[in-house]
Amino acid sequence: MKRSLALSRVYQLLEPGPVVLLTTARDGRSNVMAMSWLTMLEFAPPLVGCVVSNRNASFATLKATQECVINIPTDDLATQVVGIGNTSGRDIDKFATFGLTRQKASKVTAPRIAECYANLECRVVDTRMVTAYNFFVLEVVKAWLDRSCAHPRTLHHQGWGTFGITGETITLPSAMP
Amino acid sequence: MKRSLALSRVYQLLEPGPVVLLTTARDGRSNVMAMSWLTMLEFAPPLVGCVVSNRNASFATLKATQECVINIPTDDLATQVVGIGNTSGRDIDKFATFGLTRQKASKVTAPRIAECYANLECRVVDTRMVTAYNFFVLEVVKAWLDRSCAHPRTLHHQGWGTFGITGETITLPSAMP
Repeated sequence: MKRSLALSRVYQLLEPGPVVLLTTARDGRSNVMAMSWLTMLEFAPPLVGCVVSNRNASFATLKATQECVINIPTDDLATQVVGIGNTSGRDIDKFATFGLTRQKASKVTAPRIAECYANLECRVVDTRMVTAYNFFVLEVVKAWLDRSCAHPRTLHHQGWGTFGITGETITLPSAMP
Repeated sequence: MKRSLALSRVYQLLEPGPVVLLTTARDGRSNVMAMSWLTMLEFAPPLVGCVVSNRNASFATLKATQECVINIPTDDLATQVVGIGNTSGRDIDKFATFGLTRQKASKVTAPRIAECYANLECRVVDTRMVTAYNFFVLEVVKAWLDRSCAHPRTLHHQGWGTFGITGETITLPSAMP
């Protein structure tokens, strides 16, 4: 169902600010964390800046492998998103615990999450801000989108398990990307 | 109507990823730009990372004054947001053109926008990533919130004037901020 998306359109998925699920893998083990602190930095090639705290198990894996996948869930996965955010991959296999399906990525070792409507395969391209802010700069090298999900009800975290859900969509005349 | 908000709660306003209006001021002239590329970097003191392109008139003012206000609009301001994003402060007074009211900020010279339900007064605290990414690190030094706006219908830009609007809000049990 998911097909390749032009890299120049990736910003349209992340600019609205949805919660995402970040997957990493090392030595045959994969993990997933919930993340809301990310922003676009450049349109093309798409660059994404994100905070992965050094308290997260994913931090060491991301630093070592320099690879990850950004997966975008919709509100049918809200329970899993909160569960993932409240547990650690040091203790459990989050894929098994939360019933998520690993899908092979094409350019990175980290898995894609089948249940998410979009998957962005990423490589770390700048670690200069990691010491100061745990801030990684990622380049999206391959993007996948389920086009049957025309108006994704994405989750936007307001803290402590409260999420705004994207409802109505409006379009106004604009010459700006 | 707007009252002070504890700085430790500022992330709850920005983490959901709304479009914001960034105000700056210099030599008695103020300007406003629309911005979607921003992220939280730290809870307390609240640090925000944002991209202000060097093509924007606001870039030079922000760099020179090291101050700004992040104003968060709701969907009743959608037309103004798009207008602000499609014009330049080099050509027009955007406050006059789009009927926005300047409100005095308490800690910075840049004005707050009265019509926005939240205003975050900011100082630039790190410019190391400006050359590479036009990425400024801001510290929020004072926050204002209209608490009568309990479920703000914030705008989330999907590109080319299309916005998702925050509709339903859900809360799931979570121990995470």
